[in-house]
Amino acid sequence: MKQSMTFIPTLREVPADAEVKSHQLMLRAGFTRQNTSGVYSYLPLAHKVLKKIEQIVREEMNNAGASELLMPALQQAELWQESGRWYSYGPELMRLKDRHNREFALGATHEEMITSLVRDEIKSYKRLPLSLYQIQTKFRDEKRPRFGVLRGREFIMKDAYSFHATHESLDEVYVKMFTAYQNIFSRCGLDFRAVIADSGAMGGTDTHEFMVLSDIGEDTIAYSDTSQYAANIEMAPVNATYEKSTEEQKELVKIETPDQKTIEEISTFLNVSKESCIKSVLFNVDDKFVLVLVRGDHEVNDIKVKNLFGASVVDLATAEETIKALNCVPGFIGPINVSEDVEVVADHAISSVVNGVCGANQAQYHFQGVNIERDAKITRFADLRFIQEGDKSPDGEGTIRFAKGIEVGHVFKLGTRYSESMNATFLDENGRTQPMIMGCYGIGVSRTLAAIIEQHHDENGIVWPGSVAPFQIHVIPVNIKNDSQKDLAEKLYTQFTQNGYEVLFDDRAERVGVKFADSDLIGLPVRVTVGKRADEGIVEVKIRKTGESFEVSVDELHEKMKQILGN
Amino acid sequence: MKQSMTFIPTLREVPADAEVKSHQLMLRAGFTRQNTSGVYSYLPLAHKVLKKIEQIVREEMNNAGASELLMPALQQAELWQESGRWYSYGPELMRLKDRHNREFALGATHEEMITSLVRDEIKSYKRLPLSLYQIQTKFRDEKRPRFGVLRGREFIMKDAYSFHATHESLDEVYVKMFTAYQNIFSRCGLDFRAVIADSGAMGGTDTHEFMVLSDIGEDTIAYSDTSQYAANIEMAPVNATYEKSTEEQKELVKIETPDQKTIEEISTFLNVSKESCIKSVLFNVDDKFVLVLVRGDHEVNDIKVKNLFGASVVDLATAEETIKALNCVPGFIGPINVSEDVEVVADHAISSVVNGVCGANQAQYHFQGVNIERDAKITRFADLRFIQEGDKSPDGEGTIRFAKGIEVGHVFKLGTRYSESMNATFLDENGRTQPMIMGCYGIGVSRTLAAIIEQHHDENGIVWPGSVAPFQIHVIPVNIKNDSQKDLAEKLYTQFTQNGYEVLFDDRAERVGVKFADSDLIGLPVRVTVGKRADEGIVEVKIRKTGESFEVSVDELHEKMKQILGN
Repeated sequence: MKQSMTFIPTLREVPADAEVKSHQLMLRAGFTRQNTSGVYSYLPLAHKVLKKIEQIVREEMNNAGASELLMPALQQAELWQESGRWYSYGPELMRLKDRHNREFALGATHEEMITSLVRDEIKSYKRLPLSLYQIQTKFRDEKRPRFGVLRGREFIMKDAYSFHATHESLDEVYVKMFTAYQNIFSRCGLDFRAVIADSGAMGGTDTHEFMVLSDIGEDTIAYSDTSQYAANIEMAPVNATYEKSTEEQKELVKIETPDQKTIEEISTFLNVSKESCIKSVLFNVDDKFVLVLVRGDHEVNDIKVKNLFGASVVDLATAEETIKALNCVPGFIGPINVSEDVEVVADHAISSVVNGVCGANQAQYHFQGVNIERDAKITRFADLRFIQEGDKSPDGEGTIRFAKGIEVGHVFKLGTRYSESMNATFLDENGRTQPMIMGCYGIGVSRTLAAIIEQHHDENGIVWPGSVAPFQIHVIPVNIKNDSQKDLAEKLYTQFTQNGYEVLFDDRAERVGVKFADSDLIGLPVRVTVGKRADEGIVEVKIRKTGESFEVSVDELHEKMKQILGN
Repeated sequence: MKQSMTFIPTLREVPADAEVKSHQLMLRAGFTRQNTSGVYSYLPLAHKVLKKIEQIVREEMNNAGASELLMPALQQAELWQESGRWYSYGPELMRLKDRHNREFALGATHEEMITSLVRDEIKSYKRLPLSLYQIQTKFRDEKRPRFGVLRGREFIMKDAYSFHATHESLDEVYVKMFTAYQNIFSRCGLDFRAVIADSGAMGGTDTHEFMVLSDIGEDTIAYSDTSQYAANIEMAPVNATYEKSTEEQKELVKIETPDQKTIEEISTFLNVSKESCIKSVLFNVDDKFVLVLVRGDHEVNDIKVKNLFGASVVDLATAEETIKALNCVPGFIGPINVSEDVEVVADHAISSVVNGVCGANQAQYHFQGVNIERDAKITRFADLRFIQEGDKSPDGEGTIRFAKGIEVGHVFKLGTRYSESMNATFLDENGRTQPMIMGCYGIGVSRTLAAIIEQHHDENGIVWPGSVAPFQIHVIPVNIKNDSQKDLAEKLYTQFTQNGYEVLFDDRAERVGVKFADSDLIGLPVRVTVGKRADEGIVEVKIRKTGESFEVSVDELHEKMKQILGN
């Protein structure tokens, strides 16, 4: 493509409102422009990358046995009312009315649509399993759009859905999808982890998120430093053994601790370790009060609390609720002498605390010499804390480290959440009506584009992996007004194109410094500069990734390109 | 693709609510399903065809020097307010509010968006011309969605926009786009005409519509039976000469014509030819009354009336307005003795009427013996009627015929309609600020899919042209439970695929009659049936288009495929 004829509006300055590298570079290298908050145009270079990512996704999805289709963005409210999500989804779901005042959602996701489509056509186990996917624009009115296309309100997603007669069949397809996702993100040149994730409100079972490792990630991944184990920090079980001190048990003593509310404060005030403090956190679990105890150096993981009770809703108790339940203001609450109405559960680590400290359920007082099994009534000991760096990996191999990740994909066993509410049933081998068992599998295509840039750039611009580069070769004549440079550059542009490479030809009448700076920003794998030695048939080749450059004669150039670009 | 693994829900019956063939066949052959009025899902087969059409469009647009990008569907109201279309577009433009109560349009078209994008980046004539396009989902809340995806509310469109410093540059790109469109529709296997169209309210100049000839088309095309001339019937000038009778002029006589209101009635009542009747039609032209006269066998073309007066709005006068203007009820109005407030204009043909008949501006009365130049005050004679079949072609070559057409494309010189209202300017060679000159170029991609089916089907189903067929070869084992048939069919499926063909393999355990019926419905170019002679290595090849079938040995099969499919 001739650069003079296309639209690559590069910028010299870093845009003030772009916080992260990918956003800055997509603006500076002329890949995107924002139209309004969280809504972007993909200019020609970004469009080419999107198409490459889409093609990789398509190949791997087809390979996993899924068929591509295209569902509409306009979704009648009735569908979402059937599943109940019309009411539960909240303001993220964009809604509108047509000229007849009928209500529609703009597709934020397509579980309802695909379930309706499949239930109308598939009636027998003989037609299952079935995997369908689309690559389509989605709309989600994010509360806080940010980081450019990483968290936008209109974005491109690949969403796949599978339908099954048996859980075994779902398991098989889940594995295929998992493998396809590994292939996709590897082919995109990404350093990622498949992490065990929370099935959340979706009511499913197995679920993995595919996380691209990046400091700007909004999620924390707990991973093993030696094995493949990785989980969303919320999901990682703690598999620790705690050594109980052999110290003799002391007497329980109530002491005055004026204004000493946090673990930090109380451990300093009493000159004891955080490990010997007992942190008491009161929750409202499906309208019952539960006091959760963790060691002072640990944090309560509310997902684990939720799972322990199989609860729908787990909220921190408010100050009023705390007073009502424990007759004490927050900051001084504890597990000793609580009413029967409050259940007390403790993290395993608590059992190792000897002569600990905890709130006395009386303002300005704590207990010392706490030995929990002697002094309090604990209904259950369980794994209730967040995993921490340095903990043993849950799979027994290695030590846990933390990393930040950008979620680019998600595979999820939905089960019968939608088929039951929407009556998507089939007749099984015995002629019995059963709800279809479903899986869903998403990839943020436009987010993947940004995630690639987060991992592939240097101080001068983007450094594209070959598989997703908008073009492979950048041909730049130093001086387009010099006939031999211009002619040779044009000839190479034509030849490279004929040889099957994708080539960007900078035919603009710009100073060479501008062209090189733009070229570094855009970040194609190979630059071929046609300069003073054009008459001799000598050009310069520069590898964007390594910065390595060398002169090559035109005769050897095509062989050289084969070596570098591998085709 | 294995048929058992994909989603092709064929129907035996013609769906009751599908009026046209393409709609019926897209439902019956499992290509689409309606989600709600005018909103469709494209199932895997349709999706494959869409991708092929898109690829043809892409290649030809790139070839015409345009660059692909992707703009958002969510468009902030402010943009449309700048152009004024927020107010003028009407209910076809779907609107919604985000969580902050900000208003958005769902992109029905992207003139505003692209103009805003380009004006922010391009400031100099040196960066022009620029052609950009996208293939994207559009939303238009049609008053009357119908004919399946031919007139939907959510559809896929290719929209291109060009920006120029000079009209000559626009003319050049217009020709390139025109040629690209001819290539695109030819490659899609369509019988079409590029017709001169009305520039309408868009304020542009040159405009052509690309019409696929079809009886279900909503537009009438007037075309020459010998030349390339074709125009929307509204746009075709009449280039006729009328012979004036040599009959002697008679006296003007008022006669009673009780209840004789139409030309049909009055010509029968008086036993005169329609040609000798003068049809008088009263219009409200920008709030002035204009009486338009055409011959009784002709029809007034209100676009020509509008153009004659350079008017914004031309409406038929209401009964009340008629009484006000002419002091007479409709049915008996005429050009004689009208007040100064009503301008009378006449089609050229009127000047040839000798001793004609017209309304007397008095209920139940007409004049006979009308000789218009003697009896009425005509301010202008002009071309004011619709062209008719049998008229001379406006280009002087051949005779006009009519055909119905489905509009699949539109090329349009926008001029400065948007650049002026939205302040998209550039500095010209002399440093003067000028509005950019624009062109726009649309193709209904999903509509093209349906138009192809309208032209390519028979009583058994669709008959795909090779260029856009979802697959090229349909491999069908007569009995999948017979091992030699199954094995040979699978082997051929694999080999064809390896040879670069796209193959649909009917591996379902269905009766062969069902498979053949489905195969005819789906309409792939070549069917290879593996039946009883599988053991001998003999299969049957059937050409969908001609119905021709013959047996071929497997050894010769690949050579045969090359001959048939040409690759």
